[in-house]
Amino acid sequence: MEFAYDKETQELRERLLAFMDEHVYPAEPVFEEQLAAREDPWSTAPVVHELQAEARRRGLWNLFLAGHPEHGGLSNLRYAPLAEITGRSPRLAPVALNCAAPDTGNMEVLTMFGTPEQKKLWLEPLLNGEIRSAFAMTEPEVASSDATNITTSIVRDGDEYVINGRKWFITGALNPNCRVFIVMGKTDPEADRHRQQSMVLVPRDTPGLRVERGMRVMGFDDSDHGGHAEVVLEDVRVPVENLVGGEGEGFAIAQARLGPGRIHHCMRLIGMAERALELACRRALDRVAFGRPLADQGVVREWVAESRVAIEQLRLLVLKTAYLMDTVGNKGAHTEIQAIKIATPRTVEQILDRAIQVHGAAGLSQDSPLSGWLAGARSLRLADGPDEVHLRSLGRAELRKYRQR
Amino acid sequence: MEFAYDKETQELRERLLAFMDEHVYPAEPVFEEQLAAREDPWSTAPVVHELQAEARRRGLWNLFLAGHPEHGGLSNLRYAPLAEITGRSPRLAPVALNCAAPDTGNMEVLTMFGTPEQKKLWLEPLLNGEIRSAFAMTEPEVASSDATNITTSIVRDGDEYVINGRKWFITGALNPNCRVFIVMGKTDPEADRHRQQSMVLVPRDTPGLRVERGMRVMGFDDSDHGGHAEVVLEDVRVPVENLVGGEGEGFAIAQARLGPGRIHHCMRLIGMAERALELACRRALDRVAFGRPLADQGVVREWVAESRVAIEQLRLLVLKTAYLMDTVGNKGAHTEIQAIKIATPRTVEQILDRAIQVHGAAGLSQDSPLSGWLAGARSLRLADGPDEVHLRSLGRAELRKYRQR
Amino acid sequence: MEFAYDKETQELRERLLAFMDEHVYPAEPVFEEQLAAREDPWSTAPVVHELQAEARRRGLWNLFLAGHPEHGGLSNLRYAPLAEITGRSPRLAPVALNCAAPDTGNMEVLTMFGTPEQKKLWLEPLLNGEIRSAFAMTEPEVASSDATNITTSIVRDGDEYVINGRKWFITGALNPNCRVFIVMGKTDPEADRHRQQSMVLVPRDTPGLRVERGMRVMGFDDSDHGGHAEVVLEDVRVPVENLVGGEGEGFAIAQARLGPGRIHHCMRLIGMAERALELACRRALDRVAFGRPLADQGVVREWVAESRVAIEQLRLLVLKTAYLMDTVGNKGAHTEIQAIKIATPRTVEQILDRAIQVHGAAGLSQDSPLSGWLAGARSLRLADGPDEVHLRSLGRAELRKYRQR
Amino acid sequence: MEFAYDKETQELRERLLAFMDEHVYPAEPVFEEQLAAREDPWSTAPVVHELQAEARRRGLWNLFLAGHPEHGGLSNLRYAPLAEITGRSPRLAPVALNCAAPDTGNMEVLTMFGTPEQKKLWLEPLLNGEIRSAFAMTEPEVASSDATNITTSIVRDGDEYVINGRKWFITGALNPNCRVFIVMGKTDPEADRHRQQSMVLVPRDTPGLRVERGMRVMGFDDSDHGGHAEVVLEDVRVPVENLVGGEGEGFAIAQARLGPGRIHHCMRLIGMAERALELACRRALDRVAFGRPLADQGVVREWVAESRVAIEQLRLLVLKTAYLMDTVGNKGAHTEIQAIKIATPRTVEQILDRAIQVHGAAGLSQDSPLSGWLAGARSLRLADGPDEVHLRSLGRAELRKYRQR
Repeated sequence: MEFAYDKETQELRERLLAFMDEHVYPAEPVFEEQLAAREDPWSTAPVVHELQAEARRRGLWNLFLAGHPEHGGLSNLRYAPLAEITGRSPRLAPVALNCAAPDTGNMEVLTMFGTPEQKKLWLEPLLNGEIRSAFAMTEPEVASSDATNITTSIVRDGDEYVINGRKWFITGALNPNCRVFIVMGKTDPEADRHRQQSMVLVPRDTPGLRVERGMRVMGFDDSDHGGHAEVVLEDVRVPVENLVGGEGEGFAIAQARLGPGRIHHCMRLIGMAERALELACRRALDRVAFGRPLADQGVVREWVAESRVAIEQLRLLVLKTAYLMDTVGNKGAHTEIQAIKIATPRTVEQILDRAIQVHGAAGLSQDSPLSGWLAGARSLRLADGPDEVHLRSLGRAELRKYRQR
Repeated sequence: MEFAYDKETQELRERLLAFMDEHVYPAEPVFEEQLAAREDPWSTAPVVHELQAEARRRGLWNLFLAGHPEHGGLSNLRYAPLAEITGRSPRLAPVALNCAAPDTGNMEVLTMFGTPEQKKLWLEPLLNGEIRSAFAMTEPEVASSDATNITTSIVRDGDEYVINGRKWFITGALNPNCRVFIVMGKTDPEADRHRQQSMVLVPRDTPGLRVERGMRVMGFDDSDHGGHAEVVLEDVRVPVENLVGGEGEGFAIAQARLGPGRIHHCMRLIGMAERALELACRRALDRVAFGRPLADQGVVREWVAESRVAIEQLRLLVLKTAYLMDTVGNKGAHTEIQAIKIATPRTVEQILDRAIQVHGAAGLSQDSPLSGWLAGARSLRLADGPDEVHLRSLGRAELRKYRQR
Repeated sequence: MEFAYDKETQELRERLLAFMDEHVYPAEPVFEEQLAAREDPWSTAPVVHELQAEARRRGLWNLFLAGHPEHGGLSNLRYAPLAEITGRSPRLAPVALNCAAPDTGNMEVLTMFGTPEQKKLWLEPLLNGEIRSAFAMTEPEVASSDATNITTSIVRDGDEYVINGRKWFITGALNPNCRVFIVMGKTDPEADRHRQQSMVLVPRDTPGLRVERGMRVMGFDDSDHGGHAEVVLEDVRVPVENLVGGEGEGFAIAQARLGPGRIHHCMRLIGMAERALELACRRALDRVAFGRPLADQGVVREWVAESRVAIEQLRLLVLKTAYLMDTVGNKGAHTEIQAIKIATPRTVEQILDRAIQVHGAAGLSQDSPLSGWLAGARSLRLADGPDEVHLRSLGRAELRKYRQR
Repeated sequence: MEFAYDKETQELRERLLAFMDEHVYPAEPVFEEQLAAREDPWSTAPVVHELQAEARRRGLWNLFLAGHPEHGGLSNLRYAPLAEITGRSPRLAPVALNCAAPDTGNMEVLTMFGTPEQKKLWLEPLLNGEIRSAFAMTEPEVASSDATNITTSIVRDGDEYVINGRKWFITGALNPNCRVFIVMGKTDPEADRHRQQSMVLVPRDTPGLRVERGMRVMGFDDSDHGGHAEVVLEDVRVPVENLVGGEGEGFAIAQARLGPGRIHHCMRLIGMAERALELACRRALDRVAFGRPLADQGVVREWVAESRVAIEQLRLLVLKTAYLMDTVGNKGAHTEIQAIKIATPRTVEQILDRAIQVHGAAGLSQDSPLSGWLAGARSLRLADGPDEVHLRSLGRAELRKYRQR
């Protein structure tokens, strides 16, 4: 057992920290100005592309793609502390490193399950940061935490699949540069519960695919990264070559995609919590009420300590989970992935909430990133399955240990 | 001791419930459509005026104005259960009854401290729902939970006051129909700590008063009721007749204004919590996951119970506080006002959060009112002083009981 | 609606407060000394009988027996604030007023369901405080929160019932002055679920009834009031006249008994919380650490405030529940009784825990009553059904409102 | 970074697990019987000595003594997972391995600061498990969380020190086999705040040392390991050779002693939590209420999951702290030691509380170890400084990071 980062990780952390200091933090106000000034309210800001070029130049590119060093990918354990650092500037740093959801998951899917042709068409430009992508699974009409509920139909008709359905909370889909959707639907509603689903690639400009509106998350449209769209698919036709993997493999592919996605979110949330704590400390030291800085008042000091104690525990569990994913695989790390999925968003939400309280009304406003971050953390208590589903499943697994004996 | 509503209250509740069912709830989707369609993004929706006319016709008008039955005002204890009901549709019902903040507080101030001329000019149109108003106290540069921190200057120059300062989170100020601001500033920075402040009436179109931008609250601009403005006052000149009360009375007036304002918020929050619980129950009964309605799953049932248990306790404490305000005055009810100010927003926030969780992602989106309500409840943990200030003060008062003995 | 105590209640409160000050509080150290010195480790202390004589002399006797003013009983609403006061000295004051569990519930049962003969034999001496009694329902082998699980058999054999079973947590049973047990068992295991049970009176000296041991509650034996016994019944024979009510009515009688029992506990817990808060305040003012009294340190002040805010809410809900029991009956107040049963023990446990923390290690020791009170509050999260059973039931009832529509 | 135990640790864990299965768990009921049957109510049970002999034979002896492999000591990181396992049977396993507090801390003190003569007289028999010892620091009259408050006086008189003072919560002191006390007092009240204190060794039979009574902790006397004594020292005289370290070094020695003591407690608490979770799971699977095992009811499953998620986080933070103590020293690990001291007892208390709730009333009684464990965990929120002191200190350190910049 060894708790220090290895040398390569330390070197990468320093490289990334320098990039953050020299480029990312200075770009934050520029980003906000460009977003305010853009014409297409869903387009991204030009500064993102400048950051991407610089990151790639520095060898900070596609780090997330575990198992594929040829693209820059690190092991989960090495990636974790870097992803955490990107979480300190969550709207800029992940995308700057081409490590932003949902493209990361989509690149993983294409790497694992894509045909050579699919890789050439979609994976390569994604790995190059030239285009963006969306993952269209959740639907408004059903509890999508149970993926077998999905109702979108994918019906083979000669050399084509015909897709009909309605999806929502499709992150990134409103970004005009989002060029392709991975759509999950049912090819065989009569098959076994976990063999009914398939995934197909649907280019954005395919007739019948209509992005209807952006869903808000606690008032935020998240337009900087393409928002969260409601999408209608009406008699959308794609060639059968657009099938990802085989028919009936949709559920399995979705599962394979989820593990890394969850841990990436948790890693970044920890960085977000660290930055929120820093902001809270700075504010508490600066702000005077009733004759003393907030930092000298008992409750604030206690909040700061509670946040620190919570972060230390979360980080270690996330790192251990990454270690397990590397050593025993995503399935072997299933319980730990659930544990961090349960523990991280809600704890970080509390840390953000306390940071907001230290800031007063400013902390809730657009003058602070805190409430936007809180909306993001809050939404992760629902995304990829609500906490309660994971608690139930994890509790059942724990009880099973004693049931079998 | 008697826990039943008296006959008049029961009659008024029935009248108001009928108004809600027949007019307010049906107007909710209309309101949303009109807001989406309006040209001025800060103007209100026409349906509000229709509701106001109907409410007035039904004798549901200015009920909040305790001590002034001539205007329709009820005692706090009678108003409380009605305010609660309006909280079930918090963006429409309070304004429909001309019982919406910040006008309520401003009308109270003018009723208590206004000159006959001020009453004619501003109170009458406010009581008639013809104009709206704002209360400009909090400032970006100082911790405004400590009102003695206020830095805006009000300097007498002949027959005029000259006002300079910057205010923010001035609720309602972006509404074009908001015609007057009650501005708090310092007329004598050398006086005793609580005698430095004064209040003056500043008509919206006074030169030098500039509404700069709307502050967001967790992503929401609250444009339906005029948002929360940042306002600059540069060499704003008003006649000395615009002074409210006397010079040096600003702090006392602000205190007098706060008690009723706080309890009104708490009353409405309880209604909001009731409606959120209703929405959660309906959703839990409708929505099926893993083969059973959410309502049949243990945790959801427990959440519903917890919310019910919490609401019952909050309501009683709010009602008792109203009773005390009526019988021993706002000062006599000081501890109880603090207690409900502490307990209500955070508890209602939890109830809303659980209701959101039952709704899944929809609960966070614009398709549900829940996240907007949550932003409102959250902001009340800061508005009129953060919880921590009240906890400290209330704790100190409790300890004082034993210190003196 | 009216939140002031009526005149009679005020007069009774003053009378009781005087009794507390003049007799009960001074008797507390005497009580401890007598307990430490007694020979029979389960007998009570002589000072209790002195207090009882004085209380009776002052007209503070059997106040709990709602509906029976001829014995001194008050309405629930009038009794509530008095029961609260007795909770300030929970080991002495309730018994001093002949208002201590489980005798109160047993007296209610006998008043409602006892035959004239049973009343003469058992109710009269109980009302006079001459004997004590026990209620034997819960069993070690089954989840007794579900009363239909009870396995003790009551079999008619000619003019006698023959009882076999094992009971535990039979409060008061080790007190040598506990002269009679009300035993619940099954007379007809084939009947409908709620018609299988009956109750019979079993005098303590009946052959076959054996008190095996005292159950501890978090280390406490509660020997001052007769502890919590494990009791074995082996071929215990009592005449059929000892049946309480009719055969098959045991479940209904138990239900009738529970409502008042639960609210009495809650009332007293609130008084206990008030006294704990007082002790915490006094300690915080006295004790200096790091150069300042604890009372001047942020977190302690916040704890005091939180306790005050919680107590105010709990008290009102308990009072309203008492009011409902008086006006719409115990069944009509079912939801509220559940709500206070859920909310009170856990909240008071927190208040006690904070009071302990203020006291340091002394607060956990025998030099302070706090940890014993905490054990009592903790056990009430299980007694009469664990919180979870009540939460589930209350949640279900709330959901049912919308299911029916 | 590496999360697997190294080979030696794995081998030791297996050896210890075998010892637990083959000897410790089977000895638990024997232990209880022997305790119930003993004549001296403070003596230990004979089975403890049998276990000690077996443990020593198996090379499981003095493992705690980091830095001293010659006595069997392991590094903190290697000891941590073993200490955790002993926490599964907290009253038997630590003492069986001669790794029980307060002897562990006292052996550390003597190893670091003892003279050769002191080592021979006291350290050797302690290392051999022949005698036990006590650490007498905390006093009833002052807030001992602030060690500078200590009032016991140690006055040099020729070749002797004369000691006067009153101590309490002196763990183990009632055990007749506790042969020596390390007493902290003030040798120079005029010196600098942290140089006033010294420590002296006081043999149990020294005239003037009087063990007055055992302090209870939530009703428990903890007599199995010598309880928690109140001790009076009246003109107690010891030779000056009994000074530990130098005059004025008492505070520094106490600090050196605390770090390992705190982490040992946390390690064991985690094992206790694991066993409580196991007990809860087994009970939930066995116990049927309302027609289904508790394990199939939503809330119980959620509790199990919450406990698992919490334990995983705590364990990692404790292990990392152990790692830091080994690599950067106890001072370098100061923040982490505080963090686990804050996080572990309260979290384990919740886990125990939930386990109790699953067990019903039995969980609170002497038929289950849970309530005794809970008392132990609860007391650790106060022992070695209340949580609040550590939170304040940790919060201040965090804020200091930004103050300096």
